[in-house]
Amino acid sequence: MKYCFGTDIGGTTVKIGLFSSDSDLLEKWEIPTRRDKNGINILSDIADSINSKIKEKCISHESIVGIGVGVPAPIKENGFVAKAANLGWENADVIKTLNSLTGLIVKTANDANAAALGEMRKGSGQGSKNLIMITLGTGIGGGIVVNGKILNGVNGAAGEIGHITVNYNETEKCGCGKCGCLEQYASATGIVRIFKEQLSVFPNTVFTNTNDVSAKDVFDAVKNNDPAALKTAEIFAEYLGAALANIAALIDPEVFVIGGGVSKAGNIIIDLISKYYSKYSFFANRNVKFALSSLRNDAGIYGCANLILQD
Amino acid sequence: MKYCFGTDIGGTTVKIGLFSSDSDLLEKWEIPTRRDKNGINILSDIADSINSKIKEKCISHESIVGIGVGVPAPIKENGFVAKAANLGWENADVIKTLNSLTGLIVKTANDANAAALGEMRKGSGQGSKNLIMITLGTGIGGGIVVNGKILNGVNGAAGEIGHITVNYNETEKCGCGKCGCLEQYASATGIVRIFKEQLSVFPNTVFTNTNDVSAKDVFDAVKNNDPAALKTAEIFAEYLGAALANIAALIDPEVFVIGGGVSKAGNIIIDLISKYYSKYSFFANRNVKFALSSLRNDAGIYGCANLILQD
Repeated sequence: MKYCFGTDIGGTTVKIGLFSSDSDLLEKWEIPTRRDKNGINILSDIADSINSKIKEKCISHESIVGIGVGVPAPIKENGFVAKAANLGWENADVIKTLNSLTGLIVKTANDANAAALGEMRKGSGQGSKNLIMITLGTGIGGGIVVNGKILNGVNGAAGEIGHITVNYNETEKCGCGKCGCLEQYASATGIVRIFKEQLSVFPNTVFTNTNDVSAKDVFDAVKNNDPAALKTAEIFAEYLGAALANIAALIDPEVFVIGGGVSKAGNIIIDLISKYYSKYSFFANRNVKFALSSLRNDAGIYGCANLILQD
Repeated sequence: MKYCFGTDIGGTTVKIGLFSSDSDLLEKWEIPTRRDKNGINILSDIADSINSKIKEKCISHESIVGIGVGVPAPIKENGFVAKAANLGWENADVIKTLNSLTGLIVKTANDANAAALGEMRKGSGQGSKNLIMITLGTGIGGGIVVNGKILNGVNGAAGEIGHITVNYNETEKCGCGKCGCLEQYASATGIVRIFKEQLSVFPNTVFTNTNDVSAKDVFDAVKNNDPAALKTAEIFAEYLGAALANIAALIDPEVFVIGGGVSKAGNIIIDLISKYYSKYSFFANRNVKFALSSLRNDAGIYGCANLILQD
């Protein structure tokens, strides 16, 4: 039996999975992401954790195909990261470092791109080699898979769906420094921001306390006809549906997989997006499919494992 | 010496090039596109022309690598065209038909995608394997090359840059049936349309006759400070620059090559686009390069030849 590791580095924890070479998840665990000291310990912590697991399971080095690693930043195909703000890294060489600490083959990708590959191999995108994943979380991540391979881009920065400009008139700044990014309307943070704006227009709300409203709460309130939530959902859906239609005109994918915390609101998300997708899509792209992520938080480790297993 | 043919099918003429296997253009010619009778003669006319050239040049069949064909419609990788409005075709099988009429290997692509490949191999994109070509003509064509290969899409409809929605408030319809497509502002037709609208706002014009104004005339008038032309150029540049920034956020290319009739206005086009590209682009994509097409009308035949030569 052959094995590989899928390692998804996040800002708070690193998720690691031990997989069979058939992409079956055998065991998964997490270690904290030590961001202090410019994140200098992150890769050695990962190596220690993987080396311990290899010992614990008495796995021979020869039976390990390699380690796939997802990083929350643009990363070049050679494993070089110029800057990963979430991790404190500058000029990190992920492949070289992890290879020297484990003696194993290492492959890397952006975390959102890896998640798309995971959904293709074992999630909602199974059966398709051309899919786009959109992760609606605190921010928006995107991953594009074409003919079964991740589209990385020359700077390792392809698939930045959250930073498409969708509103030229926005005056509030996105975290990236631009104004009017999709992330400002369709991420969990963006949805709550819009809902709070709409509350001043539609103060009659079903909420007794609107301080700690989450994006999921907003979509639940849509089902209860909360006026501000209804308006927020339409704004969310029009910006996201139009953006996906534009993306389809460029990439012509088979499936869009929607993941991240916002997708926990369920099929209402797909119903909303589909309505505006139909309005704004080019005729040749009308038959695209939409699906909710089935791997959820594990999409990353599945995808990372498949960076190694796909070749 | 080995040879191949590049065949670019347009609505009025078919351009054919005889190439060496080093992608050097040895000879080029055109035949009319017979669109009558649902375009039934187009492929046999092409086969006759190629077969005659083979005889004329006394080229042996063994020394011909194949025929690459560009079609002005979505076309699947197997050569199937569901509908090509410009040619009158429905359910055409380009590879099967041309192969049986010539006995040669045939490969196909959408014409705009092929042009992008041509610019990569012998034009302004030389040295890059990741480029996007935008053809600003009567309509807008687009072609995306990733790692040296055309991005076709599942329906053969990738790269439809002209049908990205850039203005949600547009009420006038695009030829595709939607409203607010990039083509309505940045194609030659779109530029003239906007200019005529702006003339009603800025009637003081340098033109003595505004009936037959072309897109190139509009950009020439910019240099003479014509108020309506200046405003038109800004509208053109903001929509196109923002669209290219959004495309870069998705694909992360190295170069954008601008072609088509509008590009004949020269470097003013790149200056205008760059201004708004900088405003709307994600930080990771700021170092993208812009170039004017150097192959011009021959980009298509070069690209078609390279459909065959790239493998």
